[in-house]
Amino acid sequence: MSHLFDLNAWMARQLDAVERGLDRWVSVDASADLDHHAPAELMAAMRYAVLDGGKRLRPLLVLAAFEAVSAGVRSSFVPNQKDFDEAARRGVMLEGAPAAKADLAALRAACAVELIHAYSLVHDDMPCMDNDVLRRGKPTVHVQFGQASALLAGDALQALAFELLTPDDHVMPAWQQARLCRLLARAAGCAGMAGGQAIDLASVGLHLTEAQLREMHRLKTGALLQASVMMGAACGQTGAATLAALQDYGAAIGLAFQVVDDILDVTADSATLGKTAGKDADQSKPTYVSLMGLENANAFAQELQCQALTALARSGLVDTRALQALAAMVVRRSK
Amino acid sequence: MSHLFDLNAWMARQLDAVERGLDRWVSVDASADLDHHAPAELMAAMRYAVLDGGKRLRPLLVLAAFEAVSAGVRSSFVPNQKDFDEAARRGVMLEGAPAAKADLAALRAACAVELIHAYSLVHDDMPCMDNDVLRRGKPTVHVQFGQASALLAGDALQALAFELLTPDDHVMPAWQQARLCRLLARAAGCAGMAGGQAIDLASVGLHLTEAQLREMHRLKTGALLQASVMMGAACGQTGAATLAALQDYGAAIGLAFQVVDDILDVTADSATLGKTAGKDADQSKPTYVSLMGLENANAFAQELQCQALTALARSGLVDTRALQALAAMVVRRSK
Repeated sequence: MSHLFDLNAWMARQLDAVERGLDRWVSVDASADLDHHAPAELMAAMRYAVLDGGKRLRPLLVLAAFEAVSAGVRSSFVPNQKDFDEAARRGVMLEGAPAAKADLAALRAACAVELIHAYSLVHDDMPCMDNDVLRRGKPTVHVQFGQASALLAGDALQALAFELLTPDDHVMPAWQQARLCRLLARAAGCAGMAGGQAIDLASVGLHLTEAQLREMHRLKTGALLQASVMMGAACGQTGAATLAALQDYGAAIGLAFQVVDDILDVTADSATLGKTAGKDADQSKPTYVSLMGLENANAFAQELQCQALTALARSGLVDTRALQALAAMVVRRSK
Repeated sequence: MSHLFDLNAWMARQLDAVERGLDRWVSVDASADLDHHAPAELMAAMRYAVLDGGKRLRPLLVLAAFEAVSAGVRSSFVPNQKDFDEAARRGVMLEGAPAAKADLAALRAACAVELIHAYSLVHDDMPCMDNDVLRRGKPTVHVQFGQASALLAGDALQALAFELLTPDDHVMPAWQQARLCRLLARAAGCAGMAGGQAIDLASVGLHLTEAQLREMHRLKTGALLQASVMMGAACGQTGAATLAALQDYGAAIGLAFQVVDDILDVTADSATLGKTAGKDADQSKPTYVSLMGLENANAFAQELQCQALTALARSGLVDTRALQALAAMVVRRSK
């Protein structure tokens, strides 16, 4: 804790691992077995949706939470020859060295969450939903590949997320696979992300109270961000009090993310955002800005960052610097 | 084996359990926890897509395979008070009596497969895909609820399938949860159902060889049917030779199902099918009938049924009557 934490260096290392993981796992070669190959056209749309773009906030949260719960544990891990062989066979390395088993599990979890996020964007951009043509500065998937392919690519990305969490090897123990699938399925489904999107859809043009708006975002965006934190924790070992604190941290930054999203929708331009700005106001969508005004929304985001840091302080974890830095990043981001 | 097997009575029992399972698990009350509720509108679309319709072939395959691998094992299971309490708490009964743990696991697996099947139909019927307005004799989900809700309902059903397989209790051991998720994710994803649909999409108006057509259907329909059999087996205990035989059985009936589907598309009318007949020919889709003619397609379906029965004969399983009967049903069905 006495060392200065270099978020940029930490992020660069983690992002490198995430990009390599996604590149490897979202590919024809990585298909379930030798007999079954994903068709090349579908895989092209899936890779387009996932690679070369995005802040990777969810994977970073997984890896930061995993590091936090592993601090003091990981240094005692000495990989044996079998671990090295396994890592080499899988072709996945972290920081240039053969990865420890737990690192590989966390990387799988990080990539799985990103696949769920990526699929939700593909479907969300479709004409029957937000009808958006620009995402991360590129044409959206349905513009590039057609609507039918976008629909299927999204569906296949969701399945691939669960495939990624259930490798048929000894890197991840079964209890971990089951727990990660449970966390992700709940966060993605009808009482999580998909449920939040349905509320969003139904609320266009309506006046929502702050409680209703909060509930919508807790499901739509918050559930998956919170699940990212909990999935990272599930790759290590933690007590109930630590898990409860991490859950509060996840809830606070989940909500903060959406408040800032609403702020950026009115303050940033499309070029900076890499997507169409001002859409919420155009579509009369209820937002934190329309509800409480820009100044109060900014203050609320700050308050949520404080809540996140307070939760970390009572987590009992030795080193939460990456999680602290990500909370700050969520609130201070400009896109 | 000496008793006459009453398929209708067996099916009535299993279907009753499946319908009750789906009714219970695809509901607002069954949401992940007390804090998170699925929004009512989304749940209505999900229930519309799943309940009161369909042959439930995949759940029946799960339960038949489970029964086959459990024969001789199940009679020794004596539920203790904790099992009874657990079954009562969950509200799920089989045949009116508290269910054994393994039965509950198989029922969850059966319902999870059906949710994946149901979601694929919802998305498949959408205007950007097959643009079908009739399914199981009712308006399709997007006709009834709008395209955006149909898209989200399908997405949420896929997530719910994995949620169903990963209950946070002691009914299903973690290795079983992980194994079931693995089988289902692979069968549903890019190297399975979604991949097959992508090939289907790309092949409209093209001439396919029999090998290409077979590969398309192996992914599009076969993978999930085969996975149903393997998931049922995964709820019991089996050796490698039995699993290999069941895999062959699953592959044979998977292909037979599609061959018969192609036959029915030209021989049955829309009222009988409960969906629009003659669509494949209208859309110049390659089918087994267009490839080999009606008579040869019929003969091929018979041959596949023989292959399925041969596989069962060498499975080493004592009682495969339900699986045999389902193979016959797949080939002789009229809708």
